[in-house]
Amino acid sequence: MANSERIEQAVEQLASLPTIGRKTARRLAFHLLRLPEEHVQRFAETIIAMRREVQECSICCTFTDTTTCPTCANPKRNVLQICVVEQPSDVLAIERTGDYRGVYHVLHGALNPLDGVGVTDIRMRELFARLESNIEEVILAVNPTVEGELTTQYIVKMTQPLTIPITRIARGIPVGADLEFTDEATLSRAFIGRQPV
Amino acid sequence: MANSERIEQAVEQLASLPTIGRKTARRLAFHLLRLPEEHVQRFAETIIAMRREVQECSICCTFTDTTTCPTCANPKRNVLQICVVEQPSDVLAIERTGDYRGVYHVLHGALNPLDGVGVTDIRMRELFARLESNIEEVILAVNPTVEGELTTQYIVKMTQPLTIPITRIARGIPVGADLEFTDEATLSRAFIGRQPV
Repeated sequence: MANSERIEQAVEQLASLPTIGRKTARRLAFHLLRLPEEHVQRFAETIIAMRREVQECSICCTFTDTTTCPTCANPKRNVLQICVVEQPSDVLAIERTGDYRGVYHVLHGALNPLDGVGVTDIRMRELFARLESNIEEVILAVNPTVEGELTTQYIVKMTQPLTIPITRIARGIPVGADLEFTDEATLSRAFIGRQPV
Repeated sequence: MANSERIEQAVEQLASLPTIGRKTARRLAFHLLRLPEEHVQRFAETIIAMRREVQECSICCTFTDTTTCPTCANPKRNVLQICVVEQPSDVLAIERTGDYRGVYHVLHGALNPLDGVGVTDIRMRELFARLESNIEEVILAVNPTVEGELTTQYIVKMTQPLTIPITRIARGIPVGADLEFTDEATLSRAFIGRQPV
Protein backbone atom coordinates (compact mmCIF):
# COMPACT_ATOMS: atom_id res chain seq x y z
CA MET A 1 0.00 0.00 0.00
CA ALA A 2 1.19 3.48 -0.80
CA ASN A 3 1.90 5.85 2.06
CA SER A 4 0.14 8.82 0.46
CA GLU A 5 -3.21 8.87 -1.30
CA ARG A 6 -2.47 12.44 -2.46
CA ILE A 7 0.66 11.32 -4.28
CA GLU A 8 -1.20 8.43 -5.91
CA GLN A 9 -3.89 10.83 -7.17
CA ALA A 10 -1.27 13.16 -8.65
CA VAL A 11 0.57 10.22 -10.22
CA GLU A 12 -2.70 9.10 -11.80
CA GLN A 13 -3.28 12.58 -13.28
CA LEU A 14 0.28 12.87 -14.58
CA ALA A 15 0.21 9.36 -16.04
CA SER A 16 -2.93 10.28 -18.00
CA LEU A 17 -0.79 12.60 -20.16
CA PRO A 18 0.59 11.25 -23.45
CA THR A 19 4.19 9.86 -23.42
CA ILE A 20 4.14 9.71 -19.58
CA GLY A 21 4.02 6.27 -17.99
CA ARG A 22 3.43 5.49 -14.33
CA LYS A 23 7.14 5.40 -13.50
CA THR A 24 7.82 8.80 -15.02
CA ALA A 25 4.62 10.15 -13.43
CA ARG A 26 5.87 9.07 -10.01
CA ARG A 27 9.23 10.68 -10.68
CA LEU A 28 7.52 13.93 -11.68
CA ALA A 29 5.34 13.83 -8.55
CA PHE A 30 8.36 13.41 -6.28
CA HIS A 31 10.08 16.25 -8.14
CA LEU A 32 7.08 18.52 -7.58
CA LEU A 33 7.03 17.57 -3.87
CA ARG A 34 10.58 18.88 -3.54
CA LEU A 35 9.80 22.25 -5.12
CA PRO A 36 8.71 25.24 -3.01
CA GLU A 37 4.91 25.37 -2.69
CA GLU A 38 4.76 28.70 -4.61
CA HIS A 39 6.52 27.10 -7.59
CA VAL A 40 4.02 24.26 -7.73
CA GLN A 41 1.17 26.75 -7.35
CA ARG A 42 2.54 28.78 -10.28
CA PHE A 43 3.04 25.60 -12.34
CA ALA A 44 -0.58 24.56 -11.84
CA GLU A 45 -2.01 28.06 -12.33
CA THR A 46 -0.10 28.55 -15.59
CA ILE A 47 -1.69 25.39 -16.97
CA ILE A 48 -5.18 26.39 -15.82
CA ALA A 49 -4.70 29.88 -17.32
CA MET A 50 -3.57 28.37 -20.61
CA ARG A 51 -6.62 26.11 -20.87
CA ARG A 52 -9.00 28.94 -19.86
CA GLU A 53 -7.59 31.73 -22.01
CA VAL A 54 -6.31 30.06 -25.15
CA GLN A 55 -8.94 30.05 -27.89
CA GLU A 56 -9.15 29.31 -31.60
CA CYS A 57 -8.37 32.21 -33.94
CA SER A 58 -11.64 33.50 -35.43
CA ILE A 59 -10.04 33.35 -38.89
CA CYS A 60 -7.53 30.46 -39.13
CA CYS A 61 -8.62 28.40 -36.05
CA THR A 62 -5.09 28.08 -34.63
CA PHE A 63 -4.62 28.38 -30.86
CA THR A 64 -4.20 31.99 -29.77
CA ASP A 65 -4.66 34.28 -26.74
CA THR A 66 -6.59 36.86 -28.77
CA THR A 67 -9.69 36.74 -30.98
CA THR A 68 -7.46 36.96 -34.05
CA CYS A 69 -4.03 35.32 -33.98
CA PRO A 70 -0.88 37.43 -34.53
CA THR A 71 -0.32 35.84 -37.96
CA CYS A 72 -3.81 36.65 -39.23
CA ALA A 73 -3.55 40.13 -37.68
CA ASN A 74 -0.19 40.81 -39.36
CA PRO A 75 -0.79 43.23 -42.30
CA LYS A 76 2.41 41.97 -43.97
CA ARG A 77 1.01 38.47 -44.48
CA ASN A 78 -0.67 37.59 -47.77
CA VAL A 79 -4.24 36.70 -46.78
CA LEU A 80 -4.95 35.38 -50.28
CA GLN A 81 -2.55 32.46 -49.80
CA ILE A 82 -3.87 29.89 -47.31
CA CYS A 83 -1.79 26.99 -46.06
CA VAL A 84 -3.99 24.19 -44.67
CA VAL A 85 -2.49 22.17 -41.80
CA GLU A 86 -3.84 19.59 -39.36
CA GLN A 87 -2.54 20.99 -36.04
CA PRO A 88 -1.50 24.31 -34.43
CA SER A 89 1.93 22.73 -33.90
CA ASP A 90 2.27 22.43 -37.70
CA VAL A 91 1.90 26.23 -37.94
CA LEU A 92 4.85 26.62 -35.55
CA ALA A 93 6.93 24.15 -37.60
CA ILE A 94 6.28 26.07 -40.84
CA GLU A 95 6.84 29.46 -39.16
CA ARG A 96 10.27 28.23 -38.02
CA THR A 97 11.35 27.97 -41.67
CA GLY A 98 10.78 31.74 -41.99
CA ASP A 99 9.93 31.28 -45.69
CA TYR A 100 6.16 31.40 -45.78
CA ARG A 101 4.42 34.80 -45.98
CA GLY A 102 0.82 33.67 -46.46
CA VAL A 103 -1.68 32.73 -43.75
CA TYR A 104 -2.90 29.39 -42.35
CA HIS A 105 -5.96 27.31 -41.77
CA VAL A 106 -5.80 24.77 -38.94
CA LEU A 107 -8.21 21.84 -39.36
CA HIS A 108 -7.56 20.43 -35.86
CA GLY A 109 -7.34 16.92 -37.24
CA ALA A 110 -7.74 14.99 -40.47
CA LEU A 111 -10.65 12.94 -41.85
CA ASN A 112 -10.56 9.46 -40.39
CA PRO A 113 -13.77 7.46 -40.97
CA LEU A 114 -12.42 4.44 -39.08
CA ASP A 115 -12.01 6.53 -35.92
CA GLY A 116 -15.25 8.37 -36.60
CA VAL A 117 -13.63 11.70 -37.47
CA GLY A 118 -15.89 13.23 -40.11
CA VAL A 119 -16.13 16.60 -41.87
CA THR A 120 -18.02 18.25 -38.99
CA ASP A 121 -15.44 17.09 -36.40
CA ILE A 122 -12.67 19.23 -37.88
CA ARG A 123 -12.63 22.90 -39.04
CA MET A 124 -13.62 22.07 -42.63
CA ARG A 125 -16.71 24.30 -42.74
CA GLU A 126 -14.57 27.23 -41.57
CA LEU A 127 -12.09 26.51 -44.39
CA PHE A 128 -14.77 26.45 -47.10
CA ALA A 129 -16.22 29.71 -45.74
CA ARG A 130 -12.81 31.35 -46.23
CA LEU A 131 -12.47 29.93 -49.74
CA GLU A 132 -15.65 31.75 -50.84
CA SER A 133 -13.67 34.98 -51.07
CA ASN A 134 -11.11 35.57 -53.82
CA ILE A 135 -8.21 33.26 -52.83
CA GLU A 136 -4.99 33.06 -54.91
CA GLU A 137 -3.71 29.69 -53.70
CA VAL A 138 -4.49 26.94 -51.23
CA ILE A 139 -1.38 25.04 -50.11
CA LEU A 140 -2.17 21.67 -48.54
CA ALA A 141 0.39 20.84 -45.87
CA VAL A 142 -1.45 17.98 -44.19
CA ASN A 143 0.51 14.94 -43.04
CA PRO A 144 1.56 12.37 -45.67
CA THR A 145 -0.68 9.70 -44.11
CA VAL A 146 -3.82 7.87 -45.18
CA GLU A 147 -5.91 10.40 -43.21
CA GLY A 148 -4.02 13.32 -44.74
CA GLU A 149 -4.53 11.88 -48.22
CA LEU A 150 -8.26 11.46 -47.59
CA THR A 151 -8.49 15.03 -46.31
CA THR A 152 -6.61 16.29 -49.38
CA GLN A 153 -8.94 14.43 -51.75
CA TYR A 154 -12.01 15.74 -49.95
CA ILE A 155 -10.82 19.36 -50.12
CA VAL A 156 -9.86 19.02 -53.81
CA LYS A 157 -13.24 17.51 -54.66
CA MET A 158 -15.29 20.06 -52.73
CA THR A 159 -13.39 23.07 -54.10
CA GLN A 160 -13.48 22.00 -57.76
CA PRO A 161 -16.38 24.36 -58.63
CA LEU A 162 -14.41 27.28 -57.12
CA THR A 163 -11.40 26.87 -59.50
CA ILE A 164 -8.91 27.91 -56.81
CA PRO A 165 -5.33 26.77 -57.54
CA ILE A 166 -4.60 24.04 -54.98
CA THR A 167 -1.05 22.81 -54.38
CA ARG A 168 0.40 20.38 -51.87
CA ILE A 169 3.85 20.51 -50.32
CA ALA A 170 6.42 18.21 -51.94
CA ARG A 171 6.93 14.69 -50.70
CA GLY A 172 10.45 13.41 -51.21
CA ILE A 173 13.71 12.59 -49.51
CA PRO A 174 14.27 14.58 -46.29
CA VAL A 175 17.27 16.92 -46.48
CA GLY A 176 20.29 15.18 -44.94
CA ALA A 177 18.73 11.72 -45.28
CA ASP A 178 20.38 8.68 -46.82
CA LEU A 179 18.89 7.24 -50.04
CA GLU A 180 19.77 3.75 -48.87
CA PHE A 181 17.56 4.06 -45.80
CA THR A 182 14.64 5.88 -47.45
CA ASP A 183 11.45 3.82 -47.66
CA GLU A 184 10.06 2.84 -51.08
CA ALA A 185 6.95 5.04 -50.90
CA THR A 186 9.03 8.16 -50.19
CA LEU A 187 11.59 7.29 -52.86
CA SER A 188 8.82 6.62 -55.36
CA ARG A 189 7.26 10.05 -54.54
CA ALA A 190 10.68 11.67 -54.90
CA PHE A 191 11.01 10.28 -58.44
CA ILE A 192 7.50 11.39 -59.43
CA GLY A 193 8.19 14.86 -58.06
CA ARG A 194 11.60 15.28 -59.69
CA GLN A 195 12.49 18.81 -60.81
CA PRO A 196 14.84 20.23 -63.45
CA VAL A 197 18.14 21.34 -61.90
CA MET B 1 6.88 34.18 -33.13
CA ALA B 2 4.45 31.94 -31.33
CA ASN B 3 0.74 32.63 -31.62
CA SER B 4 0.02 32.24 -27.92
CA GLU B 5 1.99 33.58 -24.99
CA ARG B 6 -0.15 31.43 -22.66
CA ILE B 7 0.90 28.25 -24.40
CA GLU B 8 4.57 29.28 -24.31
CA GLN B 9 4.33 29.90 -20.55
CA ALA B 10 2.77 26.47 -19.98
CA VAL B 11 5.38 24.82 -22.21
CA GLU B 12 8.10 26.51 -20.15
CA GLN B 13 6.58 25.18 -16.91
CA LEU B 14 6.17 21.65 -18.28
CA ALA B 15 9.69 21.62 -19.76
CA SER B 16 11.09 22.48 -16.32
CA LEU B 17 10.11 18.99 -15.14
CA PRO B 18 12.72 16.21 -15.27
CA THR B 19 12.70 13.91 -18.35
CA ILE B 20 10.47 16.39 -20.25
CA GLY B 21 12.07 18.30 -23.11
CA ARG B 22 10.58 21.25 -24.98
CA LYS B 23 9.07 19.05 -27.72
CA THR B 24 7.31 16.78 -25.26
CA ALA B 25 6.25 19.82 -23.21
CA ARG B 26 4.59 21.32 -26.29
CA ARG B 27 2.87 18.03 -27.01
CA LEU B 28 1.57 17.89 -23.44
CA ALA B 29 0.35 21.50 -23.66
CA PHE B 30 -1.59 20.79 -26.86
CA HIS B 31 -3.03 17.67 -25.24
CA LEU B 32 -4.19 19.70 -22.24
CA LEU B 33 -5.76 22.29 -24.56
CA ARG B 34 -7.95 19.58 -26.07
CA LEU B 35 -9.24 18.35 -22.71
CA PRO B 36 -12.42 19.78 -21.16
CA GLU B 37 -11.64 22.76 -18.91
CA GLU B 38 -12.89 20.86 -15.81
CA HIS B 39 -10.40 18.06 -16.46
CA VAL B 40 -7.50 20.50 -16.66
CA GLN B 41 -8.76 22.25 -13.52
CA ARG B 42 -8.87 18.89 -11.69
CA PHE B 43 -5.40 17.99 -13.00
CA ALA B 44 -3.88 21.21 -11.69
CA GLU B 45 -5.77 21.13 -8.38
CA THR B 46 -4.68 17.55 -7.69
CA ILE B 47 -1.06 18.60 -8.04
CA ILE B 48 -1.51 21.68 -5.81
CA ALA B 49 -3.29 19.54 -3.20
CA MET B 50 -0.48 16.99 -3.27
CA ARG B 51 2.17 19.63 -2.70
CA ARG B 52 0.16 21.36 0.04
CA GLU B 53 -0.98 18.29 1.97
CA VAL B 54 1.81 15.77 1.65
CA GLN B 55 4.24 16.00 4.56
CA GLU B 56 7.11 13.99 5.98
CA CYS B 57 6.20 11.26 8.46
CA SER B 58 7.09 12.42 11.99
CA ILE B 59 8.88 9.10 12.57
CA CYS B 60 10.44 7.80 9.33
CA CYS B 61 10.38 11.02 7.22
CA THR B 62 8.75 9.36 4.18
CA PHE B 63 6.08 11.31 2.27
CA THR B 64 2.63 10.83 3.78
CA ASP B 65 -0.79 12.54 4.07
CA THR B 66 -0.90 12.07 7.83
CA THR B 67 1.41 12.99 10.72
CA THR B 68 2.51 9.37 10.97
CA CYS B 69 2.71 7.26 7.79
CA PRO B 70 0.61 4.07 7.47
CA THR B 71 3.73 1.88 7.76
CA CYS B 72 4.90 3.48 11.03
CA ALA B 73 1.31 3.43 12.33
CA ASN B 74 0.90 -0.28 11.52
CA PRO B 75 1.10 -2.27 14.80
CA LYS B 76 2.15 -5.40 12.86
CA ARG B 77 5.44 -3.83 11.74
CA ASN B 78 8.58 -4.44 13.79
CA VAL B 79 9.63 -0.96 14.94
CA LEU B 80 12.96 -2.31 16.21
CA GLN B 81 14.14 -3.08 12.67
CA ILE B 82 14.88 0.07 10.66
CA CYS B 83 15.66 0.03 6.95
CA VAL B 84 17.49 3.20 5.87
CA VAL B 85 16.79 4.38 2.28
CA GLU B 86 17.56 7.52 0.32
CA GLN B 87 14.14 8.30 -1.17
CA PRO B 88 10.42 7.74 -0.47
CA SER B 89 10.27 5.92 -3.83
CA ASP B 90 12.72 3.34 -2.42
CA VAL B 91 10.18 2.55 0.32
CA LEU B 92 7.60 1.78 -2.37
CA ALA B 93 10.09 -0.45 -4.21
CA ILE B 94 10.86 -2.47 -1.06
CA GLU B 95 7.17 -2.64 -0.06
CA ARG B 96 6.41 -4.18 -3.47
CA THR B 97 8.55 -7.22 -2.54
CA GLY B 98 6.12 -7.89 0.34
CA ASP B 99 8.98 -9.47 2.33
CA TYR B 100 10.00 -6.76 4.76
CA ARG B 101 8.10 -6.41 8.06
CA GLY B 102 10.27 -3.77 9.77
CA VAL B 103 9.98 0.02 9.41
CA TYR B 104 11.91 2.58 7.38
CA HIS B 105 13.96 5.73 7.65
CA VAL B 106 14.04 8.00 4.60
CA LEU B 107 17.13 10.22 4.41
CA HIS B 108 15.84 12.28 1.45
CA GLY B 109 19.22 12.07 -0.24
CA ALA B 110 22.75 10.83 0.32
CA LEU B 111 25.91 12.58 1.47
CA ASN B 112 27.56 14.29 -1.48
CA PRO B 113 30.27 16.79 -0.50
CA LEU B 114 30.95 17.70 -4.15
CA ASP B 115 27.36 18.88 -4.59
CA GLY B 116 27.34 20.42 -1.10
CA VAL B 117 24.96 17.86 0.42
CA GLY B 118 26.09 17.51 4.03
CA VAL B 119 24.78 15.77 7.14
CA THR B 120 22.31 18.58 7.95
CA ASP B 121 20.85 18.57 4.43
CA ILE B 122 19.40 15.07 4.79
CA ARG B 123 17.39 13.44 7.63
CA MET B 124 20.50 12.12 9.44
CA ARG B 125 19.79 13.80 12.79
CA GLU B 126 16.30 12.24 12.76
CA LEU B 127 17.87 8.80 12.15
CA PHE B 128 20.33 9.09 15.04
CA ALA B 129 17.51 10.24 17.33
CA ARG B 130 15.64 7.01 16.52
CA LEU B 131 18.75 4.90 17.11
CA GLU B 132 18.99 6.13 20.71
CA SER B 133 16.19 3.75 21.67
CA ASN B 134 16.72 0.00 21.78
CA ILE B 135 17.01 -0.99 18.07
CA GLU B 136 17.51 -4.63 16.97
CA GLU B 137 18.89 -4.00 13.49
CA VAL B 138 19.61 -1.21 11.05
CA ILE B 139 19.47 -2.36 7.40
CA LEU B 140 21.21 0.02 5.02
CA ALA B 141 19.45 0.01 1.64
CA VAL B 142 21.04 3.12 0.15
CA ASN B 143 22.03 3.12 -3.51
CA PRO B 144 25.25 1.30 -4.52
CA THR B 145 26.88 4.59 -5.59
CA VAL B 146 29.77 6.68 -4.30
CA GLU B 147 27.28 8.84 -2.37
CA GLY B 148 25.53 5.78 -0.95
CA GLU B 149 28.88 4.34 0.12
CA LEU B 150 29.86 7.58 1.84
CA THR B 151 26.51 7.70 3.61
CA THR B 152 26.94 4.08 4.74
CA GLN B 153 30.42 4.77 6.12
CA TYR B 154 29.20 7.86 7.97
CA ILE B 155 26.30 5.99 9.60
CA VAL B 156 28.55 3.06 10.57
CA LYS B 157 31.14 5.39 12.09
CA MET B 158 28.65 7.50 14.02
CA THR B 159 26.74 4.51 15.43
CA GLN B 160 29.81 2.54 16.55
CA PRO B 161 29.43 3.58 20.24
CA LEU B 162 25.79 2.36 20.15
CA THR B 163 26.71 -1.24 19.18
CA ILE B 164 23.59 -1.68 17.04
CA PRO B 165 23.85 -4.50 14.48
CA ILE B 166 24.10 -2.80 11.07
CA THR B 167 23.64 -4.73 7.84
CA ARG B 168 23.50 -3.67 4.22
CA ILE B 169 21.46 -5.27 1.46
CA ALA B 170 23.43 -7.63 -0.79
CA ARG B 171 25.14 -6.40 -3.90
CA GLY B 172 25.41 -9.03 -6.62
CA ILE B 173 24.07 -10.19 -9.95
CA PRO B 174 20.47 -9.08 -10.57
CA VAL B 175 18.02 -11.98 -10.84
CA GLY B 176 17.53 -12.86 -14.51
CA ALA B 177 20.73 -11.10 -15.58
CA ASP B 178 23.46 -12.55 -17.75
CA LEU B 179 26.91 -13.12 -16.19
CA GLU B 180 28.52 -12.20 -19.49
CA PHE B 181 27.04 -8.72 -19.44
CA THR B 182 27.51 -8.00 -15.74
CA ASP B 183 30.05 -5.26 -14.99
CA GLU B 184 33.24 -6.13 -13.10
CA ALA B 185 32.37 -4.24 -9.91
CA THR B 186 29.05 -6.08 -9.56
CA LEU B 187 30.64 -9.45 -10.37
CA SER B 188 33.42 -8.79 -7.89
CA ARG B 189 30.84 -7.94 -5.19
CA ALA B 190 28.91 -11.09 -6.05
CA PHE B 191 32.03 -13.21 -5.43
CA ILE B 192 32.80 -11.49 -2.14
CA GLY B 193 29.17 -11.98 -1.01
CA ARG B 194 28.94 -15.64 -2.04
CA GLN B 195 26.75 -17.82 0.15
CA PRO B 196 26.67 -21.57 0.89
CA VAL B 197 23.97 -23.34 -1.13
